[in-house]
Amino acid sequence: MSSTYPPLTPPKRLLLGPGPSPVAPRVYEAMSKPIVGHLDPFFFQVNQEIHALLNYVWGTQNTFTMAISGTGSAGMETAVCNFVEPDSKFLVFANGFFSDRISEMGKRQGATVIRVEGTWGESISPDAAREAILRERPTVVGYVTAETSTGAWNPGKAICEAAHEVGALVLADCVTSLGTMPINLDETGIDVAFSCTQKGLSCPPGLSPITVSPRGVDYLKSKTTVNRSWYFDLKLLLEYYEGSHRYHHTAPISMFYALREGLALIHEEGLENRFARHKRNSEAFAAGAEALGMPMLVAAENRLWPLQTPQIPAGISDVAIRKRMMDATGIEILGGFGPLAGKIFRVGLMGEGSKRENVLLVLDALEVALRAEGYAPPASGVAAAAALL
Amino acid sequence: MSSTYPPLTPPKRLLLGPGPSPVAPRVYEAMSKPIVGHLDPFFFQVNQEIHALLNYVWGTQNTFTMAISGTGSAGMETAVCNFVEPDSKFLVFANGFFSDRISEMGKRQGATVIRVEGTWGESISPDAAREAILRERPTVVGYVTAETSTGAWNPGKAICEAAHEVGALVLADCVTSLGTMPINLDETGIDVAFSCTQKGLSCPPGLSPITVSPRGVDYLKSKTTVNRSWYFDLKLLLEYYEGSHRYHHTAPISMFYALREGLALIHEEGLENRFARHKRNSEAFAAGAEALGMPMLVAAENRLWPLQTPQIPAGISDVAIRKRMMDATGIEILGGFGPLAGKIFRVGLMGEGSKRENVLLVLDALEVALRAEGYAPPASGVAAAAALL
Repeated sequence: MSSTYPPLTPPKRLLLGPGPSPVAPRVYEAMSKPIVGHLDPFFFQVNQEIHALLNYVWGTQNTFTMAISGTGSAGMETAVCNFVEPDSKFLVFANGFFSDRISEMGKRQGATVIRVEGTWGESISPDAAREAILRERPTVVGYVTAETSTGAWNPGKAICEAAHEVGALVLADCVTSLGTMPINLDETGIDVAFSCTQKGLSCPPGLSPITVSPRGVDYLKSKTTVNRSWYFDLKLLLEYYEGSHRYHHTAPISMFYALREGLALIHEEGLENRFARHKRNSEAFAAGAEALGMPMLVAAENRLWPLQTPQIPAGISDVAIRKRMMDATGIEILGGFGPLAGKIFRVGLMGEGSKRENVLLVLDALEVALRAEGYAPPASGVAAAAALL
Repeated sequence: MSSTYPPLTPPKRLLLGPGPSPVAPRVYEAMSKPIVGHLDPFFFQVNQEIHALLNYVWGTQNTFTMAISGTGSAGMETAVCNFVEPDSKFLVFANGFFSDRISEMGKRQGATVIRVEGTWGESISPDAAREAILRERPTVVGYVTAETSTGAWNPGKAICEAAHEVGALVLADCVTSLGTMPINLDETGIDVAFSCTQKGLSCPPGLSPITVSPRGVDYLKSKTTVNRSWYFDLKLLLEYYEGSHRYHHTAPISMFYALREGLALIHEEGLENRFARHKRNSEAFAAGAEALGMPMLVAAENRLWPLQTPQIPAGISDVAIRKRMMDATGIEILGGFGPLAGKIFRVGLMGEGSKRENVLLVLDALEVALRAEGYAPPASGVAAAAALL
């Protein structure tokens, strides 16, 4: 037997960047359980549980909730390619990298994309959102609930109200918010939401949960154009997952096992407990970073709970700090994108990763790396955080 | 702690249908190993190994070989949406369900799809293929190497030669052939091939390996139209996997671990040994099925090694037999589609599932179920198969 390719031995990382995030042990166990076929009644039972549990986490009674067999961006593309028609008017609130991606997908569908530009690191203003929607009267509106590139939360209620007044559907990116912050989908009025498995749900990447409101389902049922995508065609997927179970594609069974376990863990913890944990750990981290002399990019009231974006002290290299942290401790954090490149770190404390010990470990590793780069923090980050934990 | 959602306990199945197929223990182990980030150097090392190993199994020197973050049908859509342009002429050899799917995807891209109809269960005739291509002069040609809906092999050399004579690219579905039969990609002349992980590679479903010839890469580089799909855009994926590692999507890391291990197992066994094993087990199964009075749908010389399609005796219900087999033994086989519905079983002996013991177990379970339905087989299937093993 050749040993050219011995079994993989992945290095141990503590994933405290913007995702993927640490995977729960119970999820890893689920993935090593024997698969069944994609038409096996057991698989559809697992999907029913996933439907119920996703509805619980999203805060919705939607009858159409499932997981797309691709990663978070596949869910984004599914939302866009099923609801944004060529030549339609698609209004996107653009205050981060992921709203740029939604815009790009809308353009590729042939829509007229109206970008309402915002500032990276700030939230969308409800009044400005309302004004833009009433002025432009789009067919579809897109926004990002939790912008992973900046750390800012975007409130959705004013967007959804105005959109519905002009008869538009609302697509919302919930990639970083699902399982980490209250989304209250039905109360907010979101029509189509998508997420991923590797952030708040404590699973590896691989699936994209998606949910569609009754209004969105009516639109799907009444539309007469054929989706250019077969793989992401929600009409076909609906028949497979929730209708006659008519064969569509061979679903990635092990990833569905993982998703079901990640969601079951949320149910066991309870949503309120989970959100409180994320909030507490994020506030402790922010206090620690500020003690280190790194003010948060985002104002306290607009800050995400799963992801913090402290500003890098002047003269300190993003890449050098991250390399030192990785080499010394195996902790992964990431830097900023686009206008925030070199200016912020992105530190994720999500799902299984949102833990007291991780708050302290990442602050300690940051402090050691900053000192090694010649920066003297004004105070102890670990002490400031521990005082709040 | 609530016990509403205790850990999943999947039923034990022996997956001997057309896929998913049994997963190798080493692959399950790999999936429970700690994930790294999608920009971690370790992840790109894993991908380099996947590239080298896929090239080995496909029989190619292609510089562009990767896995799409979706299932086999995602690979099919990637091939079609990157190489079949709106209003172009796309010729598809249609002798089974999966060539119908390729046709459907081509239509959705807005191409003029020319279907060259064949008979389900027969191979494409090289002479007829050549004649059709020279007559129609398409831009792209699509065919299925191993048609999972019928059990027939389609030889590709005449197709590729004629296609290249008229300047067309050839897309080939290798979903069931990869790792189970010789494809000899470069020698055959295939330009774009895609596959899946859950058949010949002994992994769960979740990724779609894809490879592109230098001619295909030239086409990609020179094309000026923008893909309507962002998720499946090979130009962007190339930058992520093989270029600057520019962030595209968050890859499903655990599935990549799985794929790498499934391929490493093939390397350890050796391709020739592996193909010989599949051939031997398929011939033994066919002898057994024929002893039971179930002649094969496909002529011996055109038969697949990973998948057998015995014809169901007159008056016997496909569904009743499969239910009996599942209930008594947990063995999953499937029936036919479309024109073959109710007429054949589809029995897969693929990758980890292609084993002496599985040949005997499935024949025994079939015989027991047939007898319970009132059918008296002329001879013992197990004995006939064992004589060849």
